[in-house]
Order: sequence, then structure tokens, then C-alpha cells
Amino acid sequence: MIKQKKEVVFNERPIGIFDSGIGGLTVFKEIRKVLPHEHLIYLGDTARVPYGTKSPEVIKQYSEINVRFLIEKGVKVVVVACNTASAAAIAYLHECFPDLLILGVIQPVVENLIKLDQVKKVGIIGTATTIHSNAYQRAILEHMRVEVFAQHCPLFVPLVEEGIVDHPLTMQAVDYYLSGLKRAEIDTLILGCTHYPLLLRPIDYYFGHRVRIMDSAYYTARELKKILSERHVANESHKSGEERFFVTDSAETFRRTGELFLERPLVAIEHV
Amino acid sequence: MIKQKKEVVFNERPIGIFDSGIGGLTVFKEIRKVLPHEHLIYLGDTARVPYGTKSPEVIKQYSEINVRFLIEKGVKVVVVACNTASAAAIAYLHECFPDLLILGVIQPVVENLIKLDQVKKVGIIGTATTIHSNAYQRAILEHMRVEVFAQHCPLFVPLVEEGIVDHPLTMQAVDYYLSGLKRAEIDTLILGCTHYPLLLRPIDYYFGHRVRIMDSAYYTARELKKILSERHVANESHKSGEERFFVTDSAETFRRTGELFLERPLVAIEHV
Repeated sequence: MIKQKKEVVFNERPIGIFDSGIGGLTVFKEIRKVLPHEHLIYLGDTARVPYGTKSPEVIKQYSEINVRFLIEKGVKVVVVACNTASAAAIAYLHECFPDLLILGVIQPVVENLIKLDQVKKVGIIGTATTIHSNAYQRAILEHMRVEVFAQHCPLFVPLVEEGIVDHPLTMQAVDYYLSGLKRAEIDTLILGCTHYPLLLRPIDYYFGHRVRIMDSAYYTARELKKILSERHVANESHKSGEERFFVTDSAETFRRTGELFLERPLVAIEHV
Repeated sequence: MIKQKKEVVFNERPIGIFDSGIGGLTVFKEIRKVLPHEHLIYLGDTARVPYGTKSPEVIKQYSEINVRFLIEKGVKVVVVACNTASAAAIAYLHECFPDLLILGVIQPVVENLIKLDQVKKVGIIGTATTIHSNAYQRAILEHMRVEVFAQHCPLFVPLVEEGIVDHPLTMQAVDYYLSGLKRAEIDTLILGCTHYPLLLRPIDYYFGHRVRIMDSAYYTARELKKILSERHVANESHKSGEERFFVTDSAETFRRTGELFLERPLVAIEHV
């Protein structure tokens, strides 16, 4: 009896999602779409954002602190909604927290890439730390015989956070970083940073709509849904799930930019 | 006798300089030029860089930690070689450390602005936090009857750190942020961020070489020299001063980009 009661309670626990800042909200949004009944807790480590230019050692340390915070909030699973943290710290987090289900954003997109036909030349774009970690490159080449072209695009994050997503400056930056991938005639492009979905249109336009663009937020949300169901830990409630947002710096700044990402008002942001 | 000996030792203590990351190296470089015999200790808080998008509260907290670190290293004076930290935290630091000489980068440039003739329209550019703090605007308007036009330019820091300082993308970004100041016909422009001296040429070109451009690194170094002399705490040695660099994240990343700023090789970087 007691065991059964405990299990019910476990299923109703929230899903914890963390990112260095606001980028992970694109993952949050996709999770909310496919899992409307789950309670969601989002942590944005805005006092230490960005992770993408920092070393793997520092990112591991920050990621561990973030997971501990989410565990204290009683989450049943943690989604590392940040490509940089997934690239640099996912193995480390699995070691630190062997009993916790932890899902990164790299594996789901790669697993879906593998299933596709006619993939010959794959482009990957992300932060400097994500690209230099070779996490995507390794994961892909383990399973596929394809050519991989990786490019870090450090200006994309500030462009997105500034809201400069539809301006000649945006196209100039897209051309600056992606001209090599265009010349290489990639057929598939992985947006390996949670900010980049906001640049989907200019990127798609730049490649003449001829390149298949894969976004880790989309695949991660669907993978999460599958895992919760397989492990029988989904929340079976029919009510809308609750949402809480935590940030390590000013709630106001997060709210302002966060609404661009979430495409709806952001309320109840708590500073920790 | 003992007192005199103590004083000599004090004068030989290093000057402490801190910044959120590498930008403060432009200040370091100017200080080295005018004070070749002083020992210099530089601290780049690269694990938490950038400060420019973070809240004043967080910046105060980080700045206090940085000053404590430099005090432990035995410095005789601290230069806050970061406009954002100077804007957000200088008063707080003076409160925390009443017996320590602490110099920011805002006051020296404003004091020199006041002495100039024919200043009518002043432009100030900097990070979001610097501009929103109104620190420059207040300091100027306290002493002068001029029009002030302030603009934050969040893409300038990543452009500089990426080394994109002479590219069509640079000019596009300069135009994006500075077209308002150009239309306002400013006669003087303050580069209110330690990264911006690396964009001096495109900015000067953009304004058709008709705008007086003031750089806080230059004035801060000269003010520091004056203060050390006035207070009789300059190092009277005739040997070249020693240099130590400390960073809170990877030394290697700091070295690579830091050399762009310092325009010479960077050695002996220590991770703390």
C-alpha cells in the first residue's frame, strides 16, 4: 500500500529543466506542448550565463549545482536544456547522480538523425564549447558514415537575445558563419544551441529552403515523453500542469527576453 | 625607522586590476605604458563573464569577491577596469573597503571631458547595465550643461572577442547601434566599455573622423599615475614592474583572446 502511494506521488513530481539562461525556454515550450499535464520547474542560471564560451570544468561545476537545486525541488527527471551543458557535462552528471533520470538535448536529435534517409553531409552549429567538445560529431560518427561540418557561431546568441532576428545584420551574421556550410553543400543542419530556433527563418532562407534543419528542442521533448511513458512515470492527471521559473539573477531581465522565447507572458519568476 | 621601512614596502606593493574578463586588458595596457615600474596583478573573472547583461546586485557581489582576492595578494590600490562594475558597484566597494584606494574607469574620463571646450552633444556607449545605471549620464550632467545621448551596444563585446573588428559585419553593427548618435550630431563620444577601443577605427570611420572619441582606459591610467604620485605611493624602483594574471576560468581561452587586447604575448596566467 505504502509503496503504491509513493509511486503515485513520484509520478506527480515536476520535471526539472535547466539552462544557463533563457535559451532553454525553447525546450520548455516544446515539452509543454507534448506534456500538458506535467508540472514543470525551470531554472535559468542567469547570474553565470553564458556557458557557451566557458570551459568544460566550469560548466560541470555549474551544472551540478543546478541539478542539486532541482533535486531539492523534488523533481522526478532533469532535462539539461542547454547544448553546451549537455556537451560538456552530461556524462559527469550521470556519474554524480546515478539514480536520477537525466536527459540532455544532444542524444535525442542524433537518434532521430540516424533514422533519416539520404543524409550525406551534416552541418552542426553551436557555441564554441559545444563545437569544440566534439560531442555531436562523435555521437553522429559512431552511428553513421556521413561527412560532418561543425561551426561555432558566437554572435548568434547575442543577436537572438537582442531580438535582432529579422534585420540585414542578422543575414550578414548568418552569411559570416554559414557560408562554409553552404559551400560544402550540406543536406542537413543541426541547430545545436537552444537559442538558434529563433533564427530558423533567416537560416532556412539563407540555404534556399533546401537544407533539412533539425532543432534539438523538438526532439528532446518527444524523447522525454517517450521515456516517461516507458518508465511509467508520466503524470496521469487531466489538469494543466503547473509551472515555476527560477533564475539566479534579476527576474525582470529574464522575463523581458524570456517572453520572446516562450511567445507568451512569463509570470511567477523567482530569484534564488 | 620601522614606520619608514613599512612605507617603502607599501609603495612596492602591486597595483590590482580587475575586470569581468579580458576587456580590462585595454586598461592594463595603458597603465603599463604610463607606469612601467609598478608591479601589476590582473584578475579576469572569466567564469562569470560578462557582467554587462547582469543586474547591479550580482555585479556588486562579484566585484566584492574580486577586490577581496586582490587584497589577499597584497595590492596597494585597486583599479576597477570594467565600466559595468564601475557603474554598478564603485560606491558599494568604497563602502565595503573604506581604507583601500579604489579607482573606477568612469570618473577619470568624465573629469577630462569637463575640461574640454566646445562640448555640446555627448554620446555614451556601453553595456546594457552601464547605460541603464545612468552613472555616466549623472556624472556628466552634474558638471556640464550638455545634451547626452546614451546607447547600449550588446553585440560589440562578442564582435571584439570574436576578432570581427574589420569586416562588413562590424560596420553593419556599428551602423545598427550608432545611427541615432550620428543623426543627433554628437561632437564627443565616450567609449564606455573596455572592449570598445578595439572598435575605435570602424567607429571613427563611421563618424567621418568628425567626432572626438574618448576612451576610459587612457584617462584612467593617467589618473592612476597622478594619484599614486600625489599620495606618495608610487613605486620608485627603476626596474621593470612584474606582471601576474589570474583568471577564474580556463587560462588558455584567456590567453588566446587576451593577446588581441594586449598586442603582445601573454604568459604566466594562473587559474584560481
